Formats: sequence, C-alpha cells, structure tokens
Amino acid sequence: MGRVTTRRPVVRVREGAVSTRPDTLVAEEPLEIRLDGKPLAVTMRTPGDDFALAAGFLVSEGVIGSADQDIAAIVYCDSARDEDGASTYNTVDVRLAPHVPAPEIGTLERNVYTTSSCGLCGKASLEAVRTTARWKLDGDRPRGISTELLARLPDRLRGAQRVFDRTGGLHAAALFSPTGELLDIREDVGRHNAVDKLVGRAAQRGALPLRDALLMVSGRASFELAQKAVMAGIPVLAAVSAPSSLAVDLAEETGLTLIGFLRGTSMNIYAGSHRLDLPVGTG
Amino acid sequence: MGRVTTRRPVVRVREGAVSTRPDTLVAEEPLEIRLDGKPLAVTMRTPGDDFALAAGFLVSEGVIGSADQDIAAIVYCDSARDEDGASTYNTVDVRLAPHVPAPEIGTLERNVYTTSSCGLCGKASLEAVRTTARWKLDGDRPRGISTELLARLPDRLRGAQRVFDRTGGLHAAALFSPTGELLDIREDVGRHNAVDKLVGRAAQRGALPLRDALLMVSGRASFELAQKAVMAGIPVLAAVSAPSSLAVDLAEETGLTLIGFLRGTSMNIYAGSHRLDLPVGTG
Repeated sequence: MGRVTTRRPVVRVREGAVSTRPDTLVAEEPLEIRLDGKPLAVTMRTPGDDFALAAGFLVSEGVIGSADQDIAAIVYCDSARDEDGASTYNTVDVRLAPHVPAPEIGTLERNVYTTSSCGLCGKASLEAVRTTARWKLDGDRPRGISTELLARLPDRLRGAQRVFDRTGGLHAAALFSPTGELLDIREDVGRHNAVDKLVGRAAQRGALPLRDALLMVSGRASFELAQKAVMAGIPVLAAVSAPSSLAVDLAEETGLTLIGFLRGTSMNIYAGSHRLDLPVGTG
Repeated sequence: MGRVTTRRPVVRVREGAVSTRPDTLVAEEPLEIRLDGKPLAVTMRTPGDDFALAAGFLVSEGVIGSADQDIAAIVYCDSARDEDGASTYNTVDVRLAPHVPAPEIGTLERNVYTTSSCGLCGKASLEAVRTTARWKLDGDRPRGISTELLARLPDRLRGAQRVFDRTGGLHAAALFSPTGELLDIREDVGRHNAVDKLVGRAAQRGALPLRDALLMVSGRASFELAQKAVMAGIPVLAAVSAPSSLAVDLAEETGLTLIGFLRGTSMNIYAGSHRLDLPVGTG
C-alpha cells in the first residue's frame, strides 16, 4: 500500500537561512482491530504489518498464544470505506479458532490491568499479567549474555532503522538472538505497535514463546512494553532510555531481565542480572 | 502523595566496572477516569495533578470547554481500594455540571476519531476534531514570532524539567507566552498525559482557550498531541522531533502552526508559517 511515508512541503530554517523543500514524513493512521466482527481496540499506527499488529496485540492481551493455531483468519473489513467508497485498509477483523474462548469485550483495553477486580493500582496491573501469561520465563535461559554483546545492540538497532533515516519520526523495536544476531525489526509511530508487530510476526510463524530472544527498544521501558515482552515469553528487554517503576516491578516479579540506559559501554540492570555475564566489579 | 519517583537498587555497568547503588525511577501507575461514576478511560501516568489530567482529558475529547463552569466536582473514588483496604488514589470521578450533556460512553476513546461514522481513516480523524473543537484558531493571533525566540524554547523546556534530571525517564510539555516566557510545565511517563495536565490546569483557572500560548513538547508531534493543542485553542505546537503525516494534515486543516525538529537554530515549519517572523530566505 506504500503508505509508510508521505512527502510534504516544509519550510526549513537553518542558521538563519530559509528554504522550502519537500520532506518525508512518517505516516500515521488509525487501525481498528475487531474480534469476530466486534470492535475491540483502536490504535494510531504506521500502516503496514497490520495483521501482525493485530495478532501481536492479542498475544499481549492474553487472548491467543499462537497465530497459526488460535486464529482462523485475519482480513481487512471491506465494509470499512472512506467517503469516496474506497476501502480504507484501516480495519482488520480477527476470526478466532473455534477452541479459543472469546474475551468479554469491554474488559479488554490496551492493557490488561482493567481486568483486575481489586482497586486499580500497580499491584493489580502486575497481578493481571501474572494470571494471563501463558508461559513462565525460564530463569536458566538464556544465560551468560555479555555486556559487550549488549553494548553493540543500540547501534545495530539504529543501523537497521530504514524509515527512521528518512523521517526521524519512528520508534523501533528489534529481536536479537543471544549471540547478538538481528532476527527482526519493526518501526512505528507508536512504540507499543512496533513491539506488537514483532510479536505478531513471530506468532504467525509459530515461534512463540520467544524463549531465547532479546527485545531491544529505541525509547523508554514502560510497563506496557515490559508486559508485552512477558506475554510473548521474551526473557530480556533492553531499552535506550529509562524504565518506569512499574516496569521494574513487573520484571522482578516475572523474572524478566530489564536493562535501561543502554548507551555505548554503559548500562543499568534493573532486574534479572543472573542472565548476564558481568565483568568483575569494582564496587 | 510523593509517588512521582521511587528509589530502587540498580546494577550499573560503566566502562567495564560494575557497582550496585540506588537509582531514582519515575513512577508509573494506572489512572482510571470516571464520568459521573461510569468508567471512561484508563491511562498509565505518573501520579500527581490527577484532577488536572482528568479535566484536560475531557477538554481534549470535547466533553467540556472549561473546568470551572462545566465540572461540578472532581474527587478520588474512595471505593477504589487495594487488597490491603487502602485507597489507591488511582481512580478519579468527574461530576459534570447539570448543563453539560454526558457523552455516550463507548464512543469516547483516547482519541475522538472513533466518533466518526465513515470508514475509519485519517480524514475521519480530522473531521472528528473539526466537529468537536469549541474554538477556531485565530490566524492573526499571535503573529511575528521570531525563530530566535523559538530556538530558545528547547533549552528552557529542558532546564525546567526537574524530575527528568533525576530519572531521565519523562516526557515534558510546556506552555510559553508569545514572548518566550515559561507559563507552565508538566512531566509524565506519557506524553499525552503531560499535555492533558497542562491543559487541565489552564482549564481549572478558567484560561481556555489558550489563544496566545505556544505548546512545546519534548518528543515527536503525533496526531494526538496536535489534536490536544487544537482542542485547547493553542495556536502553535513545537516539537523537538518529527511530526507524523496526520499531525501535519490536522495542522493544515485547523490553522495550527506546527514546528518540528526544533534544535539549536534549526527547525522545520510544517504548517502555519504565517504566525512566524522568518528571516529573509536564501532558497
């Protein structure tokens, strides 16, 4: 569909000089995800990988555990048309396999914390992830990840960001093997979408849980991103920027290895350091 | 409530040296916003300014135009308690004034685009903002904003970020006067929350629409942030990073001045350059 970027005229000011020229912008469009015909969620996303985004979203919410077994079909809704009668390609319908129980619509939000019955709080958010997660992270897998390997990931992520180079406007998320091999990368205006797309593509090829994968994200490590890692069975989450308190809480509770401020040879390890091969300390 | 930051032990790796020490993290907790007792939305936010966040969210969604006239009361729900029976302070109930029509619950999402009846698309998202906006931006107000003034805003934003200095984990949004005076600044794990808090605080002091204000944000200019500016009557939005295509579309349609990549003396003007006093061009 070629809508990942668009060109627009822009007035550029550089050191007091003004010029007008075309600029490449990252595309942003709403996507409505329906479940067996019923509206479930709307997200603002960069078009592309929409079926993977829908599948990954359902994995994150605990509705499905695999795309090949739990999803009968994903289709664009032909009925969703713009004012000119053209299909918008902005509504996808996920048809669940007969054995998959449909979640109660209204309990599902972008995060599972609303399913909790106790007072809304961080603890309830953690509890909701714990009860809906299909896989427990294996504390022994992977092990011995070196800080040298981790230090190379940000540059590899940045180097593989193709759309960012043209627009400067995207978050990126990538999966790496424990030896630092780039397995997959997605870019999106929404960081949660980039991760959903990665997880959804893995689900589509039957690769969940991602027991040996490292997830690297370009921005901060929020609760939502830590949740998505845990729900996909990913044992290591590394971020360029800071984690939130609730992301660290979730990592501690589930055994997720959480690394923040991964820049050059510096990094902070907030949880799950047992998976890393740390240099001998100095204090 | 003192929950804006928390302290946690962290394993630091710096140039091969390992140490363990306490680190300050930005707090993240869910907030449920209720409208006359009915659940409306849940957002992950940094605690603090919760009433302003709720008021600003309702302004962004077109439910209210002022907090002093349209809101009878905002309270924490005492019934929302954690498992120990303590109030979580994570649920607020907004009671609308009798003259304000209650929106149909279910049509309100974090963005107004779901209220559109046509096929879900960017055009429908723009239309939804246009029909729910209470104020038209005045093309003549403000005028003559110099690029020198704009170039000073990022440093002022960064200099006023108090929590960021301790955690490195927050988005910031600030309101400036047309002469570059800092009017207000909010920080939050969610960029949309930081803007809602700013707008909500303005609404609480009866200052909407913000006809002369410049809104500066620390990250990218998404559709959602442009929408919030328009809904609060703010005529100028400046961002450190890139805008999305839909943010530019909305700016063009509503007359919003949209500036991106505002760094040092460089900036890109994507829409509404008539409000700026541009240096004489060279190309």
